Amino acid sequence: MTCSPQKPVEQRLHGDVPVVDATEAATSINTDATVLISGFGSVGYPKEIPLALVEDDRDLSLTVVHSGNVGDEIDVDLVESGAIERRFSYQSSRVARAATNRRDIAFSDRNASAIGDEVQYGGLVDSAIAIVEAVAVGEDWFIPSTSLGQVPAFVEAADQLFVELNHRQPLELQLLHDVYRPDAPPNRDPVPLTDPSERIGTAHVSFDAEKLAGVVETSTPDSTYTFRDPTDDDLAIAGNLGAFLDTEMERSSVFEDAVHLQFGVGSLGNALMGKLKELDFGDRDVAYFGELIQDGLLDMLDDDRLECASATSMALTDDGQQRLFENVERYAEDVVLRPADVSNHPGVINQFGVIGVNSAIEVDIYGNVNSTHVGGKRMINGVGGSADFNRNSLVTVCALPSTLKDGEVSRVVPMAFHVDHTEHDVDVFVTEQGVADVRGCSPVERAERIIESCAHPKFAPKLRSYLEDVREQNNHIPHDIHRAMEWHE
Amino acid sequence: MTCSPQKPVEQRLHGDVPVVDATEAATSINTDATVLISGFGSVGYPKEIPLALVEDDRDLSLTVVHSGNVGDEIDVDLVESGAIERRFSYQSSRVARAATNRRDIAFSDRNASAIGDEVQYGGLVDSAIAIVEAVAVGEDWFIPSTSLGQVPAFVEAADQLFVELNHRQPLELQLLHDVYRPDAPPNRDPVPLTDPSERIGTAHVSFDAEKLAGVVETSTPDSTYTFRDPTDDDLAIAGNLGAFLDTEMERSSVFEDAVHLQFGVGSLGNALMGKLKELDFGDRDVAYFGELIQDGLLDMLDDDRLECASATSMALTDDGQQRLFENVERYAEDVVLRPADVSNHPGVINQFGVIGVNSAIEVDIYGNVNSTHVGGKRMINGVGGSADFNRNSLVTVCALPSTLKDGEVSRVVPMAFHVDHTEHDVDVFVTEQGVADVRGCSPVERAERIIESCAHPKFAPKLRSYLEDVREQNNHIPHDIHRAMEWHE
Repeated sequence: MTCSPQKPVEQRLHGDVPVVDATEAATSINTDATVLISGFGSVGYPKEIPLALVEDDRDLSLTVVHSGNVGDEIDVDLVESGAIERRFSYQSSRVARAATNRRDIAFSDRNASAIGDEVQYGGLVDSAIAIVEAVAVGEDWFIPSTSLGQVPAFVEAADQLFVELNHRQPLELQLLHDVYRPDAPPNRDPVPLTDPSERIGTAHVSFDAEKLAGVVETSTPDSTYTFRDPTDDDLAIAGNLGAFLDTEMERSSVFEDAVHLQFGVGSLGNALMGKLKELDFGDRDVAYFGELIQDGLLDMLDDDRLECASATSMALTDDGQQRLFENVERYAEDVVLRPADVSNHPGVINQFGVIGVNSAIEVDIYGNVNSTHVGGKRMINGVGGSADFNRNSLVTVCALPSTLKDGEVSRVVPMAFHVDHTEHDVDVFVTEQGVADVRGCSPVERAERIIESCAHPKFAPKLRSYLEDVREQNNHIPHDIHRAMEWHE
Repeated sequence: MTCSPQKPVEQRLHGDVPVVDATEAATSINTDATVLISGFGSVGYPKEIPLALVEDDRDLSLTVVHSGNVGDEIDVDLVESGAIERRFSYQSSRVARAATNRRDIAFSDRNASAIGDEVQYGGLVDSAIAIVEAVAVGEDWFIPSTSLGQVPAFVEAADQLFVELNHRQPLELQLLHDVYRPDAPPNRDPVPLTDPSERIGTAHVSFDAEKLAGVVETSTPDSTYTFRDPTDDDLAIAGNLGAFLDTEMERSSVFEDAVHLQFGVGSLGNALMGKLKELDFGDRDVAYFGELIQDGLLDMLDDDRLECASATSMALTDDGQQRLFENVERYAEDVVLRPADVSNHPGVINQFGVIGVNSAIEVDIYGNVNSTHVGGKRMINGVGGSADFNRNSLVTVCALPSTLKDGEVSRVVPMAFHVDHTEHDVDVFVTEQGVADVRGCSPVERAERIIESCAHPKFAPKLRSYLEDVREQNNHIPHDIHRAMEWHE
């Protein structure tokens, strides 16, 4: 048996591993299997076995588990094939949404940090098969590719393992990885991370050699992200956020020497990351400690304006991925990829006093945030890691445009009928209209600030009128629920 | 200057500390001051200065900050006097509720673990006075009494400090304490706790000697708790919870050698703690890692059925407190009191794989939990530490009776119009009717289980009919919000 690598490996295949083709692998999977798959931020997920499952003639009713966004081979093709009966925890394609809203797929959602423990210890999975993408593999180890997600937990929880060895993903990606899986409860040691840039693990994931069912070779690229160009609203939000960060750095001695930032996924998040480079951080060490590294951050890294970037995925566009692939060794000096149970760990986010910036579908005037279900009913995407950062950051910012549908619909509403982040969790709201810092405010004070600073002028009068009318009540959080409902009809 | 104690102290007053009377202390406090007070679980809070503030002739508009429940001197007398303009984060007396719902008091609420950081680093407090209860005091240290709460953070954040030296609280309480305040973000070390019983701190809280404005001597007792006798429902819930715990210990290898439990505050929580002693834990090490130690746990400790109990407060009845006071040295062998930023720390709860059991006002069929606001509007109490344990426990249980008001009102409703714990957070629901383990379930599957296993037979048909009608929709979480609203009218 080959030992786990102690130094960078220079070949992709090590030892006596069983190379199989994707169809062979797919056929060996039971029709009602539970499959735990790698992938986060639309990169680093297996492609060939999912596509072979799409082609499978059998009547499949799979349970598919992953911890972040995956690409079209799974989120579109496999979903459309009707092979998935149950799925957790994240999804976001148009096709997956539709299947979930029709309830053709039973979907259960949990914040990104929790899904590893949930799978391994929570009774979510009985017997399971892990399918992971790798850049190198040996008899009892592999090196993941562009994301880590909950791969170490999934591999520990699985009885069987298929590795997709992707020749297109550079072998040098191993330089980014810091694989560390917290030990088992109920007497875990603390995660021994004391700095966002520190490395506490390995480049490879180890496994029990008996689990390895097969290695499938492939060169298929990730689906990657496509970002729209920043809109005027995106730029105005970035400007307002920048002004808030300036004030906060001035206000708090916590940020005297160092600032640790996180930004959520998406076009807005990417635009915000890009705008970071215009901010004057003075002599401060600026580090990114988040879940995803998007294209906007590569500029900061190129300009030497970031000490380090720590995340669980390189969630880049095609261009961004190309830029990474051509310069992995240089980026590896400042970039660390970790499992999501470290990158999103509630205790570690708390340690690093992160300023977390995440988006939402809508916020209500009292500060409740809906990031998953329109009108309380229709799923748009999973909750992802926003729950980890919104709860555990030192300063929690919710940044979003004040309207959607070309200004026809307000994203600031009287009441959110689905709450993913409660009124206890978010400190600051930022829209293109302005900034509402609601720390220490009562609910009605929050409502005043959110309406006056964040609502679009087209909707502010109606929100103001709602608040004026309900505040006649003797209630801590005055509401007229029937009237609040009209905003969602 | 006296040095901080390195070994147990045998006297209450050390060095040259300024002893003042309560009126003198109260008069020195600005009329619009921010006061950070000790107290958690209705014990360990200052009594004399609050009462002197009640008697103060000036027009007071104080901001009062504490992290857990305090006694009647503050939560009734000081509130009734109209001296409090703003308050965070927890409150629960009838008088405080009424003032909060009238919005005479601006109230902002946050989970117990977060309030220390929020005060010290979050811009919540500019200049502040700490008032704490102690059993001993020196020129730059004091030893807290029956609770720790967020005292270390408050003392660090305050410019001035008054200590109420309470002669009624036994000096031996120092044996229980493990005072550890995480260092400052953004580069904190991990909390180095590896076992619920471990001690990593000191018996005393240190402070800058220049802060000490005065020591007030008193012998006033805590308000303490009064628990009703367990009802038939309480006992049935305890029975169902016990059956669930049996199954879970059988199912999961995590609990093969050790079980770490937490129970929320209140008569039900106390009854559940009391029922623990009837459960067969086999050879397992059973530890309590929670926020409050209530009377029910003392029985377990007396019977040697607990390895240890770790919490931030001895939230006992008068009888329980008497029992503790007469046997502090014996209980100190197995009891550790910690600051709430350790007892409730998201990372530490995660480390210890806690089975967390908390109650609620109501739950909805999809698993959203309301623990603070009736009908989404009327505040009953703060969110407390339930948010910490509901989010970070390995297994999260919400235990509550299925009805209230003598069975006239269902606590299982179609939609909770205030959400403190989201559908992503709770694993298991327990009422006197039964147990719904909803791990891995989709929202509609959760609804089926919660209705069938947890709703009262009087209300189950109406809930079933709601679900049957709304499930015609093509929505992930089908709802008829107007109809759901009728349950709250």
